[in-house]
Amino acid sequence: MNLKEYLIEIREAKWFSNLTTTIIIIYSSILGLKTITNLESNHIFLFHVLDYFITIYFLVEVIIKMSAEKHIKDFFKNRWNVFDFIIVVVTLIPLENTTMAAVARLFRIFRVLRLITSRPELKRIIDMLIGAIPSIIDIVLLMFIIFYIYAILGNFLFESAPSGLWKDFLVAMLTLFQILTFENWSDIMYEAMKIYPWAWIYFVSFVIIAGFVFFNLFVAVIIGEMEKLSHEGEHEEEVEKLDLILKEVRELKAELKELKEDKNR
Amino acid sequence: MNLKEYLIEIREAKWFSNLTTTIIIIYSSILGLKTITNLESNHIFLFHVLDYFITIYFLVEVIIKMSAEKHIKDFFKNRWNVFDFIIVVVTLIPLENTTMAAVARLFRIFRVLRLITSRPELKRIIDMLIGAIPSIIDIVLLMFIIFYIYAILGNFLFESAPSGLWKDFLVAMLTLFQILTFENWSDIMYEAMKIYPWAWIYFVSFVIIAGFVFFNLFVAVIIGEMEKLSHEGEHEEEVEKLDLILKEVRELKAELKELKEDKNR
Amino acid sequence: MNLKEYLIEIREAKWFSNLTTTIIIIYSSILGLKTITNLESNHIFLFHVLDYFITIYFLVEVIIKMSAEKHIKDFFKNRWNVFDFIIVVVTLIPLENTTMAAVARLFRIFRVLRLITSRPELKRIIDMLIGAIPSIIDIVLLMFIIFYIYAILGNFLFESAPSGLWKDFLVAMLTLFQILTFENWSDIMYEAMKIYPWAWIYFVSFVIIAGFVFFNLFVAVIIGEMEKLSHEGEHEEEVEKLDLILKEVRELKAELKELKEDKNR
Amino acid sequence: MNLKEYLIEIREAKWFSNLTTTIIIIYSSILGLKTITNLESNHIFLFHVLDYFITIYFLVEVIIKMSAEKHIKDFFKNRWNVFDFIIVVVTLIPLENTTMAAVARLFRIFRVLRLITSRPELKRIIDMLIGAIPSIIDIVLLMFIIFYIYAILGNFLFESAPSGLWKDFLVAMLTLFQILTFENWSDIMYEAMKIYPWAWIYFVSFVIIAGFVFFNLFVAVIIGEMEKLSHEGEHEEEVEKLDLILKEVRELKAELKELKEDKNR
Repeated sequence: MNLKEYLIEIREAKWFSNLTTTIIIIYSSILGLKTITNLESNHIFLFHVLDYFITIYFLVEVIIKMSAEKHIKDFFKNRWNVFDFIIVVVTLIPLENTTMAAVARLFRIFRVLRLITSRPELKRIIDMLIGAIPSIIDIVLLMFIIFYIYAILGNFLFESAPSGLWKDFLVAMLTLFQILTFENWSDIMYEAMKIYPWAWIYFVSFVIIAGFVFFNLFVAVIIGEMEKLSHEGEHEEEVEKLDLILKEVRELKAELKELKEDKNR
Repeated sequence: MNLKEYLIEIREAKWFSNLTTTIIIIYSSILGLKTITNLESNHIFLFHVLDYFITIYFLVEVIIKMSAEKHIKDFFKNRWNVFDFIIVVVTLIPLENTTMAAVARLFRIFRVLRLITSRPELKRIIDMLIGAIPSIIDIVLLMFIIFYIYAILGNFLFESAPSGLWKDFLVAMLTLFQILTFENWSDIMYEAMKIYPWAWIYFVSFVIIAGFVFFNLFVAVIIGEMEKLSHEGEHEEEVEKLDLILKEVRELKAELKELKEDKNR
Repeated sequence: MNLKEYLIEIREAKWFSNLTTTIIIIYSSILGLKTITNLESNHIFLFHVLDYFITIYFLVEVIIKMSAEKHIKDFFKNRWNVFDFIIVVVTLIPLENTTMAAVARLFRIFRVLRLITSRPELKRIIDMLIGAIPSIIDIVLLMFIIFYIYAILGNFLFESAPSGLWKDFLVAMLTLFQILTFENWSDIMYEAMKIYPWAWIYFVSFVIIAGFVFFNLFVAVIIGEMEKLSHEGEHEEEVEKLDLILKEVRELKAELKELKEDKNR
Repeated sequence: MNLKEYLIEIREAKWFSNLTTTIIIIYSSILGLKTITNLESNHIFLFHVLDYFITIYFLVEVIIKMSAEKHIKDFFKNRWNVFDFIIVVVTLIPLENTTMAAVARLFRIFRVLRLITSRPELKRIIDMLIGAIPSIIDIVLLMFIIFYIYAILGNFLFESAPSGLWKDFLVAMLTLFQILTFENWSDIMYEAMKIYPWAWIYFVSFVIIAGFVFFNLFVAVIIGEMEKLSHEGEHEEEVEKLDLILKEVRELKAELKELKEDKNR
């Protein structure tokens, strides 16, 4: 067995992906615990060692995966590999002692995203969500139109509200997003009703249109896509079998016709 | 190619609908940014030019669409065209220097609704929602009956509440709508429990009946309509194929009978 | 045409049910408006007249429906008729000048429930909800068990909380119901965390188990029942057609066998 | 009839499971009412008697069930029996006069869980939920990754917030959980926007990603599992029937071919 075959075997091995998963979880836990300050000061050296170790492990892992391909460019054909590659490469850049050290350290948290690439099921859900974007985009656009109209209207009507929640278009958009989650919306409404007593029409109609109708359309699309994942192909399977039966019955008919003609001859 | 054919070609062209979409988005963004006051004072002339330009563009677009039809009245057969026409015409009325100038300016925000007519997918969702009204109307009616009974009862029981949330029937309806969204409902309940300690029965029963049961019936209808859009015709396709098979099998049977009778003769 | 046939015709007539619906809506609106106090004092006589009119109308309506039946006991076989009858009879009891006058007046609001009996679609939804009770009862029972355990536990742990939200089992149940609707639950948690710093485990686990898992099971049952109403019989239709095809094919096979045996003889 | 057959008959009897259910409900109600303090002092002796009675009843019940099995180890093969056994045995341990008396008393509330084992429908729902874990685990993992990244980021950005809601990784996780339930999230956002005015991006993106998208994926899985319970096997039934038809048609074809060959010979 040559080196390439050996590398492919490692890449496909269950223990290899489990090892990567375990290392990411341990690393992430430590990264999380570090924020509890007493821990950090005592174990700063240990953490540095761990950081070097994980950087090297990820580098080795990505090199194994690249070497196992026929051509290096095959590796980049899979977008998940590109994703892995970027995360590994960016954390390799030596920024520790520059002014961007804080950002570089922060960037390490995205290493936890490699958990997704180490488990096929997670990749499948993310791929499904990306695939659902075309179905969602139209509802998001309609939602945006509703937000837009209500934001301009809200800014026009309630600009003078002392809370400043309607002071310009962008702030009004944020306020409407807050109302969409039903968060403290009654306080916002009662404040606006001091300016115009009929302002409740504005709020109740927004809650019904955006919160009840369109938000649930959005939920319906996500539930629909999720269901597709589990019922996938049931309808297709039935249609396929129906077509097969139809074909067989038609052949039968043709043969019977032939038989009859044979006889009549 | 004569003029009419040329106009039809423009009307159907992808670039034409994309151009309209782009113009609406740019216009709407500027309308939104205008509310951030510093921008407005500096660019007031530019905005006037843009406003004239978009008014003319919309007018030209609607004229192209009308001219492309065989008869002008065909144009008005499609309700989306009527919708476009109204938005274009109303913004043409010169109100800038009258007392209704503010309202006229506000009315321009409805131009963003033309985004819906420029994209067939959005029209389909809106048409679906309009089509779902008959299914929703009954649940809305039942919801209204529940609101009605609770509002009269709430007004009767808690009219003396210092917050004034139950002071008359209409206010009580608004308060119940607020409870439906689970917004601060516990504060309203604790206030009412100072009047009648058993008032929690009123609130808990309303939350369960209106918030849990009927609200979810409403959600179920929307999810159901949305699913219909994507699973549309699956059942019909299967039934159609089944009917076809049944017909073929029966013909087969008839032919076999004939063959048998031929023989017995 | 005799009287009974004439009564049946009235009972089945669309205009009769529409008239009843309209009268109920008008009556209910006035009952609602009466709570806005200024209206009441001016129109008190008018309202009394209306009240007499509607009492008589309902009485006449129920007598028509009873007379249209072969036997009066057939009328009571339909539970919706029983429901109508009770509402009509109870509002007939003269309590206006007794101590129960307020209660009697309040009872009139249930007349709006007759809207349900005047529209078959509403009856269908209510019947569906009653039919869904067996599916829901088990989830409600499981929910109750969860509430019970958390209420006893919460009372045991946080009884000393100054807000008194856990002071006995029943109050704790109400507090948990409030948490189920995600209403101000973080304030309740932060108060409890002053007694036991690890109290967040209690609240987070309750929100996940009761709020996320079981509440959604409950929603799923309602959505499922609603879907049954619209997809009803699709599966049954397909299975029926499949069985029919199978029967036909088998008959075909039997006949072919016969044909063959005929020949071999 | 020997003793074992008699015991099996008791175990399977409807009245036996109903009796157990009733006893648990009565016991649980009394346990709940005991927390309303005035009740406790007056009826303390009665409660002790009840407690002894129920301990003995449960013990007898579990002995009947064990004796009804061929081998005692068959009893432990069913995990629900193991569950019952543990609850019965633990409450038998005499801890009343030790320092763990409070804990022992508290542990009695888990007796209410035996309601689940006394009703097959409840066992079915719990089994379904356990069966749904593999489908949910991946979404929970993705949710955890999102929480993790936002918690580290939130702690990094808003550590100095005076409310202390971001003071370390674990507290930030709890804060994010609170935001997931849309509980007071706008206050948390406005506090953070005093540190960084663009902090709304952090909160709005979290609400959309975790609250709208992933939370609904989680809901979709639960709804999907619940639907499986009621639509179970519909697709399988149709496919089975289709396969049967296909088999029959093919046999028909084979026979027809035979017939033809017979003739041609």
